Amino acid sequence: MRLRNKPWAKPLIAENPQYVVTDPAALRGNWQSRFEKEQPLYIEIGMGKGRFIVEMAKKYPERNFIGLEMQTVATGIALKKQIEAKLPNLQLVCANGSGLTEFFEPNEVSGIYLNFSDPWPKNRNEKRRLTYKSFLAQYEEVMQPTGHLEFKTDNRGLFEYSLTSLNNYGMEFDQVWLDLHQTPDLTDNVMTEYEEKFSQKGQPIYKLEAHFKH
Amino acid sequence: MRLRNKPWAKPLIAENPQYVVTDPAALRGNWQSRFEKEQPLYIEIGMGKGRFIVEMAKKYPERNFIGLEMQTVATGIALKKQIEAKLPNLQLVCANGSGLTEFFEPNEVSGIYLNFSDPWPKNRNEKRRLTYKSFLAQYEEVMQPTGHLEFKTDNRGLFEYSLTSLNNYGMEFDQVWLDLHQTPDLTDNVMTEYEEKFSQKGQPIYKLEAHFKH
Ligand SMILES: C[S@@+](CC[C@H](N)C(=O)[O-])C[C@H]1O[C@@H](n2cnc3c(N)ncnc32)[C@H](O)[C@@H]1O
Ligand SMILES: C[S@@+](CC[C@H](N)C(=O)[O-])C[C@H]1O[C@@H](n2cnc3c(N)ncnc32)[C@H](O)[C@@H]1O
Repeated sequence: MRLRNKPWAKPLIAENPQYVVTDPAALRGNWQSRFEKEQPLYIEIGMGKGRFIVEMAKKYPERNFIGLEMQTVATGIALKKQIEAKLPNLQLVCANGSGLTEFFEPNEVSGIYLNFSDPWPKNRNEKRRLTYKSFLAQYEEVMQPTGHLEFKTDNRGLFEYSLTSLNNYGMEFDQVWLDLHQTPDLTDNVMTEYEEKFSQKGQPIYKLEAHFKH
Repeated sequence: MRLRNKPWAKPLIAENPQYVVTDPAALRGNWQSRFEKEQPLYIEIGMGKGRFIVEMAKKYPERNFIGLEMQTVATGIALKKQIEAKLPNLQLVCANGSGLTEFFEPNEVSGIYLNFSDPWPKNRNEKRRLTYKSFLAQYEEVMQPTGHLEFKTDNRGLFEYSLTSLNNYGMEFDQVWLDLHQTPDLTDNVMTEYEEKFSQKGQPIYKLEAHFKH
């Protein structure tokens, strides 16, 4: 997803340093200082327009959340939601997820979300997929051993790839959903912008929850 | 799948001991004696009416095949196909797959196929699913370390379960297909009776290929 440039995005981010971090490496090991309360920290990589992470922060006030996104425009759109919601347990980060271990100390993170990650269908772009083994190695490093990775997508090719990639890395699956919205009890599910779009079209949404072996 | 009784099935099996084995434990370690040539042995558990295993035996004359099925009527229908085809590299076995380690010696088998296995959707019947861990343990025991398990199904719940079960057992995934018949190059695929029925209805066919760690 590449969004059209919005001239207001950069200035809005600059005016709201209380909500958006643009130099995440400076906070490594000190993320709790950015929140009202010290509590378990969950991050989404590639939050897009931020609906999921904002709703999660509302739903779980006893957890802290970080929405990470590399596009300025998307971060700006998510920021608008947070300016409205003023959630004390939510921070936004404008940066590339490939720097994760520079941003977070080992064990600093309690859980990781990937939602509708860019599929990068060509083989030569495999390394860019957020479920490629080098990303998994970073998740393993920053996440507590008891933490879980939750991954949702509508993209069949990416999900097929990710099942194999996580399995081959040695991750243990907790649960797999091959048509999430057909699940009888879905009250726990928080929708993303992409999820709403694709599930309304009747496409199956895939989900995988997994953890690293400990 | 429970087939209506066919009075001809039992007598037909009794008349064709060259094609059907009804006491497989007696052949443990000696299966090669049942074939024209000594060559790698592949088995299908729950062959149903036998289309897949008969077609595989035709397609790969350099391999030996066994179609195992616990229902007499289904075995009888598969036998009719073999009486017609007279394949020297195919044997049928009327027995329950739960006895696998009594039927085969360690390393006697080169590959295992499960196609459209009964889903047993209720939790209390989990142990009957052919991808339950006690079955996986038997596959591991009889199959050579380099062997692969290939599993196809149209049943979403069973496939979700099996991905988790095989992963949790420690098997390594080779490849996952979430809509097999949308795959660009499908020339290698041999259809089963169930596969034809469900793919014609437009349902996605799931496939998983995996091996035990060695
Ligand atoms: C297809 S969008 C999905 C957005 C949102 N998660 C949703 O479900 O609606 C993927 C987003 O991930 C972001 N993204 C992709 N790779 C990233 C990376 N390495 N680091 C940070 N963000 C990334 C993209 O910029 C894009 O906004
Ligand atoms: C749904 S049918 C599918 C038949 C065939 N594989 C196909 O794809 O058309 C499943 C078959 O597996 C057989 N089966 C189930 N559990 C079995 C077991 N433990 N041992 C042997 N056969 C079994 C059933 O009797 C039935 O014929």
